[in-house]
This record gives sequence, structure tokens and C-alpha cells, in this order.
Amino acid sequence: MITLAVDCMGGDHGPRVTLAACRHFLDQHADARLLLVGKPESMADWSHERADILPASEVVGMDDTVEVALRKKKDSSMRVAIQQVKDGRADAAVSAGNTGALMAIARYLLKTLDGIDRPAIAALMPNGKGQATTVLDLGANVDCTAEHLLQFAVMGSALVSVLKNDNTPSVGLLNIGEEVIKGNDVIKRAGELLRSAGQSGDLNFYGNVEGNDIFKGTTEIVVCDGFVGNVALKATEGLAFMIVGFLREEFSRSIFTKIAAICAYPVLSSLKKRMDYRRYNGAALLGLRGLVFKSHGSADEFAFEQALNRAYDAARNNLLDRVKVRIARAAPLLVAATGELGASAAGTPAP
Amino acid sequence: MITLAVDCMGGDHGPRVTLAACRHFLDQHADARLLLVGKPESMADWSHERADILPASEVVGMDDTVEVALRKKKDSSMRVAIQQVKDGRADAAVSAGNTGALMAIARYLLKTLDGIDRPAIAALMPNGKGQATTVLDLGANVDCTAEHLLQFAVMGSALVSVLKNDNTPSVGLLNIGEEVIKGNDVIKRAGELLRSAGQSGDLNFYGNVEGNDIFKGTTEIVVCDGFVGNVALKATEGLAFMIVGFLREEFSRSIFTKIAAICAYPVLSSLKKRMDYRRYNGAALLGLRGLVFKSHGSADEFAFEQALNRAYDAARNNLLDRVKVRIARAAPLLVAATGELGASAAGTPAP
Repeated sequence: MITLAVDCMGGDHGPRVTLAACRHFLDQHADARLLLVGKPESMADWSHERADILPASEVVGMDDTVEVALRKKKDSSMRVAIQQVKDGRADAAVSAGNTGALMAIARYLLKTLDGIDRPAIAALMPNGKGQATTVLDLGANVDCTAEHLLQFAVMGSALVSVLKNDNTPSVGLLNIGEEVIKGNDVIKRAGELLRSAGQSGDLNFYGNVEGNDIFKGTTEIVVCDGFVGNVALKATEGLAFMIVGFLREEFSRSIFTKIAAICAYPVLSSLKKRMDYRRYNGAALLGLRGLVFKSHGSADEFAFEQALNRAYDAARNNLLDRVKVRIARAAPLLVAATGELGASAAGTPAP
Repeated sequence: MITLAVDCMGGDHGPRVTLAACRHFLDQHADARLLLVGKPESMADWSHERADILPASEVVGMDDTVEVALRKKKDSSMRVAIQQVKDGRADAAVSAGNTGALMAIARYLLKTLDGIDRPAIAALMPNGKGQATTVLDLGANVDCTAEHLLQFAVMGSALVSVLKNDNTPSVGLLNIGEEVIKGNDVIKRAGELLRSAGQSGDLNFYGNVEGNDIFKGTTEIVVCDGFVGNVALKATEGLAFMIVGFLREEFSRSIFTKIAAICAYPVLSSLKKRMDYRRYNGAALLGLRGLVFKSHGSADEFAFEQALNRAYDAARNNLLDRVKVRIARAAPLLVAATGELGASAAGTPAP
């Protein structure tokens, strides 16, 4: 039996969407159980034989600062959900709430794995090979060192190797050109660390990739700092949204274009499905001593259910243990990088 | 009469594409003259009454380092073209060659304008309002200070105010959230500088924008460092390319989808046109004492002609003088920012 703790209050729509998604999810997975966390009055008339309701008196707002979420709202639905993972009552937690708050609370309650300084957010983006590219970090870390990027590569490799059953997924370093001389100092240094990890067989490092390689599917994993990753994610969401809006507008322009839309319907619905970001909803917070998944705040019922599915798959495949093993295996690499980096940055000798 | 100096050897296709684009361009603009720079043997059988051929014995390769381009190839077509602008024989130069080399040579020969530390690359990206958002920097500067971002905002405002005849175009600062607390230290500091410039009326600063706002058209100008801008540009190009490829594949799948494609043709060709990055080809190198435009390296004839058109429009509208005036007007702002920044960074008093 897989148990997920769900923050039912998070996201733009709250229980109206999350509870509906939960019911559908339970109907699909007979071996799943849910701990539904939220304000009792918002969930009063809801019940399911494989769901328990856990009351929480507070809700972290989308505009709440990390400090407020962490220090003032100690009985928030988000925090109570993550606490279930910490206490071993749930295998994973899922929330559509404020990303910064979720990351801070998860990090505070669960702590990071040995060898990992900072958790990262990893999500899937569709690619031209009909598969999906795993990109991290997507916004947890706005300033990264080369060493953090190496850690992201190790964590991303662990995630993909577990979920895709491929032991040596390829990793690309997001840059502004393929050549090793490109990029700023952090990126160049990260390239060196990743190349040496590749040479020692700890990672399958492809080299530098550019923004378009995410969609070409050049590598299975693309590593970048959270600022760059977040901008790339949102820019491409913005473009996809613009194109869908444009098609809708053009196809409804006249009776002729409406007929054209009917003829083209199978192709358009297939395009819509392929471009549908909802299918890829559910980002993993990697590097923690527990599984936490983040849904897009604007998720509808279908999208939120995908985030639940992703958490379920991760728990079922023992993602956490397998990530731990992989990180432990890469430990000498991570320590060496820290040492070297410390030495080059602060002038102290490497351990 | 507007005179453009064209590096005919640059780009993936060289004279085959550039010369064809030049002929079409000349046919469209009776008041234009071209100085065509390249290896004489590559342009031997070409002539036009309003074009002169200027020989250059070398070509900057796409893989050449900045050092090679700047110090070893002093008779490159790229350099000779920019020299024409410096010597007042051309109003603007256009090249599809190596971006790093173009920027370095342009900066070396032309120098930056007073108050500008670093030139930036500004290009147009289509938005959902049926217009285009000007985004800068797109790759000239991989590490930027807050002060550089302020300079980009001033230069971008000058560009848009000239080309769109709108004196107060709005500026957004690319960030990972709208709230002022978002982002890394450089971005937060840039936000402060831009807000104070907005309050003093020197800029029409909107506030933070996110990646999707580029395509929403929330602001007319979006400012970011060159690393982030380059990744966002290439990621969205990659997505657009993926969608076009997907539509082609789906519509050619069977006889039924082929018929659907015929019905939907007017809409699809309108979408294709709207998503056609070639229409937006021709990025401005801003902040120099001369006009230089960069075409995409893979530009075909149509795309390269757009870059020529963009250079022509800029020269015809006295972009350079008007940018100079605008930067001079913002000089106290830029100096104050440098002073404050210098003070906070180095502990020296502001001037």
C-alpha cells in the first residue's frame, strides 16, 4: 500500500480541484491511500474508504514569505502534509502551494541527504523524440556554484535511472554554446567537474547543451541553475500558450476556418495533448530525506492528478532509497569537488 | 541615400544566401546602397548599379575564438564591413557571422557610447498581442551587474522609442516571480535601480516580469543578462521548431490527415508565418558608436533580407543619434548607479 499526504488547500483552486483529483486518483489505484490535509470545514462532506482527513488550521498563501510560512504558520496544511512523510506515516507528500515555502518547509523538516547542500526542483519537459527531458533546477536555487550543478547532475541521474530504468541517462549542462569555452565562470567550472565525473564513469556527461536541446531531446537530463531553469520553463510555457491561443483565434475566425478546424480536429487534439503541460505536472523536490512533489499552482483536476501519479510512481519505485544509493556512490566525487572548489575559492588546501 | 556594409561571407551559407538577399533588398529600396565585403572570387559574377564590392582576404569562422578574429584576421570580411561604419562610409553594418567575434570587433573598432560599459544584443520576439517584445541582452554578456541591466533598460528604451515612435515604452526586469523579493542579489539590486529610474521619470519601469510575459507582451522591453536571455531565446526556438515538426508529421500521417491539412492550410500558413523566427531576424548591437546588426547564422535569403531591412530602418530613423541623446539624458542616472554600486561593492564613496 502506498500512502500519499496531500496538501488539499494549496494552489489557486484549493479543495475544489485537489479533492476531485484525489477521488479520481483513488479510483485508479487500488493500492493507494491518501492522507488529506486541510481545513476541516473545507472538506466536511468528503469521504473515501481509503482516505483519512487530517485537520490543519492554517494555509500558506501564495504571497506568504518563507519566514511567515516557516515560523508563523506552524499548523499549515503544507507543513502537516510534509510532517506525515517525516514521521513515516506517508511515503510522499504532494502540494500545489507556494514553491518557496514548500521547499523551505520540506528542507527544514526533512533535511537534505548527505552530500547534498541544496535540494533542487526537477520536472519533465516534452521533447521532439516523443519522450520528455528532465530539467533541474527549476527555481529552488537562484544562485548556484559549480558544485551545486554537479549535485543536480547526480540527483537528476538518480531520478531518471529509477523512473526510466536506464542506469546511465545522459546529462547536458545548459549553456549558451556547445564549446567548452562558452559561459560564465561558474558554468565553465561546472563543465570541468562534470567532465571529470564523466571520465571516471560516475555520470554519463554529454557536454554543453543549448536551450533548444531541451526540446530536441539531445540529453535525457539538462542541468542548470534555478534562475535560468525557471525562466526557460516559463518562457516556453508562454510560447505554448500563445500558440494555442492563436490557433483557437484563427480557427474560429469564419465559417470556413471553423470547418477547417473540424477537418483538422484529430491532428489538433493530438497537438494539444502533446503540448499539454498538464500531462507533465508534478515536479520532484530532489535531495531531501523524503519524497515531496510540487504541482503547478494553477493545476486543474487532471493536472493535479498527474502530480499525485508522479508521487505514487516515485514511492512505488523506492525512489528515495535509490537516490540515496546513487548519491552515496557519487560521494567521493562530490567531496572532491567541494574540496577543490573550497581550495580554489578560499585558498585552503583540499581535504 | 542609406548605405549598408554587408559581411557577405558570414553565416552558414555565405555569399549564396547573402548576395541573393542583397539583390532583393536593393530592388525593394531605391534609396539604398550596399558595400559588399568578401573574397573577390566568391562574388566575381555579381553586380548591381547600387552596390560596390570591397575585397577582404579573410573570413572569421564560426569556431574562431575572439582572439583569432580580433588579432589574427585583420582583413576579415566582418572587420572590413565594420570599418566602413567607423570611417563614415556606411550607415550600418550587417553580418551573419560568429556573434562573439562580431561583438568584439565592433566594440574594438567603434567603442562604446559614453555611460555604457558593455554593448548588448537586442532582438524581437513575437507576442500574443500581435506585436513583438524587444529582449536584451541575448548573449553578449554572460555575467552582468545590476548597473549593466540598468544600461540595457536605457538602451532598449531608446531603441523601441525610435523604431516604434513611442517615447515611453515599458520595461520589465526578467525574474522568477513578480514580487520584489524574488531573484538573486544582482536582480534585486537591478530592480531597485530600475524602480528609482522609473520614479524619476527616466524610464517607464513596469516591474519584474517572468518568462511567459515575453510572449504575453506584458511590457514592450524585457531586460535580462545575456546568459538567461540566450537560453530563453534558444529554448523557445526549440519549442517552436518541435511544434512545427510535429504538425508536419501529424498532417502527413495518412490520406485523411493530408486532406485535413489542405482544409486547414490558410490557418496553418498563418500560424507558420506568425511563428516564423525569420521575420524577426536581425538583432541590434546596442551601445556602440555605430550601428551593427547581427543576423542568425543559419539565416536563409528571406531571413537575411529582414536583417538588412532592420539595419536600413535603424539608419533611416537616425537610431544612433537618438540612442545617444537618450543615453545622455539618462547619464546622471547611470553615473549615480555606478557610484552607488561602486560604493557598495568596493567601499569607496560615491562621486
